[in-house]
Amino acid sequence: MNFTITPLDKSLESKIQHKINLKTKPVGSLGVLEKIALQIGLIQHTSVPSLDNPTILVFAGDHGIAEKGEVNPYPQVVTQQMVYNFLHGGAAINAFCNQHHIALKIVDAGVNHDFDQIEGLIDAKIAYGTKNYENEPAMSRDECCKAIQTGASLVTEVYNDGCNIIGFGEMGIGNSSAASLLMSYFTKIPIEECVGAGTGVQGDAKKKKQAVLQSVFQKHKPASANEALATFGGFEIAMTTGAILRAAELKMTILIDGFIVTAALVAANAMYENVLDYCIFAHTSNEQGHQKMLNFLEKKPLIHLGMRLGEGTGAAVAYPIITSAIAFLNNMASFEEASVNTSES
Amino acid sequence: MNFTITPLDKSLESKIQHKINLKTKPVGSLGVLEKIALQIGLIQHTSVPSLDNPTILVFAGDHGIAEKGEVNPYPQVVTQQMVYNFLHGGAAINAFCNQHHIALKIVDAGVNHDFDQIEGLIDAKIAYGTKNYENEPAMSRDECCKAIQTGASLVTEVYNDGCNIIGFGEMGIGNSSAASLLMSYFTKIPIEECVGAGTGVQGDAKKKKQAVLQSVFQKHKPASANEALATFGGFEIAMTTGAILRAAELKMTILIDGFIVTAALVAANAMYENVLDYCIFAHTSNEQGHQKMLNFLEKKPLIHLGMRLGEGTGAAVAYPIITSAIAFLNNMASFEEASVNTSES
Repeated sequence: MNFTITPLDKSLESKIQHKINLKTKPVGSLGVLEKIALQIGLIQHTSVPSLDNPTILVFAGDHGIAEKGEVNPYPQVVTQQMVYNFLHGGAAINAFCNQHHIALKIVDAGVNHDFDQIEGLIDAKIAYGTKNYENEPAMSRDECCKAIQTGASLVTEVYNDGCNIIGFGEMGIGNSSAASLLMSYFTKIPIEECVGAGTGVQGDAKKKKQAVLQSVFQKHKPASANEALATFGGFEIAMTTGAILRAAELKMTILIDGFIVTAALVAANAMYENVLDYCIFAHTSNEQGHQKMLNFLEKKPLIHLGMRLGEGTGAAVAYPIITSAIAFLNNMASFEEASVNTSES
Repeated sequence: MNFTITPLDKSLESKIQHKINLKTKPVGSLGVLEKIALQIGLIQHTSVPSLDNPTILVFAGDHGIAEKGEVNPYPQVVTQQMVYNFLHGGAAINAFCNQHHIALKIVDAGVNHDFDQIEGLIDAKIAYGTKNYENEPAMSRDECCKAIQTGASLVTEVYNDGCNIIGFGEMGIGNSSAASLLMSYFTKIPIEECVGAGTGVQGDAKKKKQAVLQSVFQKHKPASANEALATFGGFEIAMTTGAILRAAELKMTILIDGFIVTAALVAANAMYENVLDYCIFAHTSNEQGHQKMLNFLEKKPLIHLGMRLGEGTGAAVAYPIITSAIAFLNNMASFEEASVNTSES
């Protein structure tokens, strides 16, 4: 599957910046909001951008490594239980999406459970969880390719329904381990520095997680970005990578959540140029590797509230800041409209 | 005027914390949102807090110092022009309050202009601007007392209309100078370190501002918090101080905006104990003294987006993060309700 991701067309940059500077405020005094307004204006190629049908896709998948409980304090069954929780509206991501009128779509990317025909769940299951990368690659190259394609197709559907700003979330017991392996592969940061608490390992349990992942990292030598994604896997991660690539291709504004989603982005960014042009980094996770990945990408997110929950919650909580950027750009008066003297007057 | 500000009743602390910990998420994984939920639960003395009729009061006032243009690049007339802009809905604070359904009230605390009977403006004018503290105190003790009382009365009205979360904003050409003087007085940080760009002075203009304020600071030796507020003034600042004190007395949640509002809080905090129990710090301003005042108060705001606009804009932009804290506390399922295993299962 190929994606055509063009760099931002910056021909309107000075027009949009001029509009920002003429608003009734000292120049630059809205800080990051001004940068976001400009970025979205460039993405949408207009000085009157809008945020239409904001949507978060949450991809859920299970991980072979999780069955043994070496890297995660919660049992694997929690992945499927949390999917039911999403569908019943009881999770954190439900609370935040309801609050901000963000459409929420839950995708079974590869959960180790038969959900039958349950309303509201998008069935995109690649397999009943990945294989354990202690023994073999998490997925085959075909499965990885299918996951990328599926993520892309789901974004196309959302785009066709009129969405132009999209975020991604994930659920998968064990997926902070997969993300750590991918992070180490793509950033070259030693694997032990990429491993954090995940859902809550500490002390000896964290040392055990580090040792297991160190051994896994040494066992495999993926020769390409695609092979790394297949080896260390996560169907939900590969699907997010495909979703990000397609969203960038479609010139949507992409909200990047925390550790797992950023790992999927780092993979996408290694495969194609210009992806970052379309991304807004929502939050800095307390999962310790996230800050290092952000440094690698040279990006500073909107908020840092010590969150480390996943599900896309960082993207959802930060979303109103993006709406503020569009609100000031479209709704504030200029000095001339308001008959206010500028500092030069 | 006396205020009775009681410390937080913490008798429900363990009950509220238990409710937070039983939500379907790893313990502590919502970071600062969990702390905000607990704080508001304690302020409202309930495990099901709510945010009712959120309101921002913007106090506007003129400053004697501003007439000479030594400390500010914008002419004094901009204060009144911006009041009209607020009333016509064209300012940044209008855009953000509309966005988040925050009621916005504009108060003439002491603008150097007759507004006549213009709809939507609360007339609480103490005088046509303060006096120039290069020569004499900005206001008399009586005027300062009246400003504090007026701020308090306006909060009582808003409270009686059903508001339980309130923020404050300000407009006043020259008021970053008044705030710098108050900051230096209350924090003992040398005045030159308290002076920043304000609406945009740089280079030689900033050195001039520093020199003027250094000379003003040396001229006056206020003997009390009240006298300091009167000397360095700002009718809008003194009114904010009274408003904060009354809001704390009424056990409202108080949103603290940027540099000017924090200076008003520092004065309030010097006058009465327990005020900080009721405060949530919305944002870190790019006005350089703000971070130092926050360090003095040992507080870390919710967002740091490089904003330095005033008007209460930081409070308004950060507000949805507070609603997220209440949303997760009231709307998320517990592990038991959602039939999800905890990490101990």
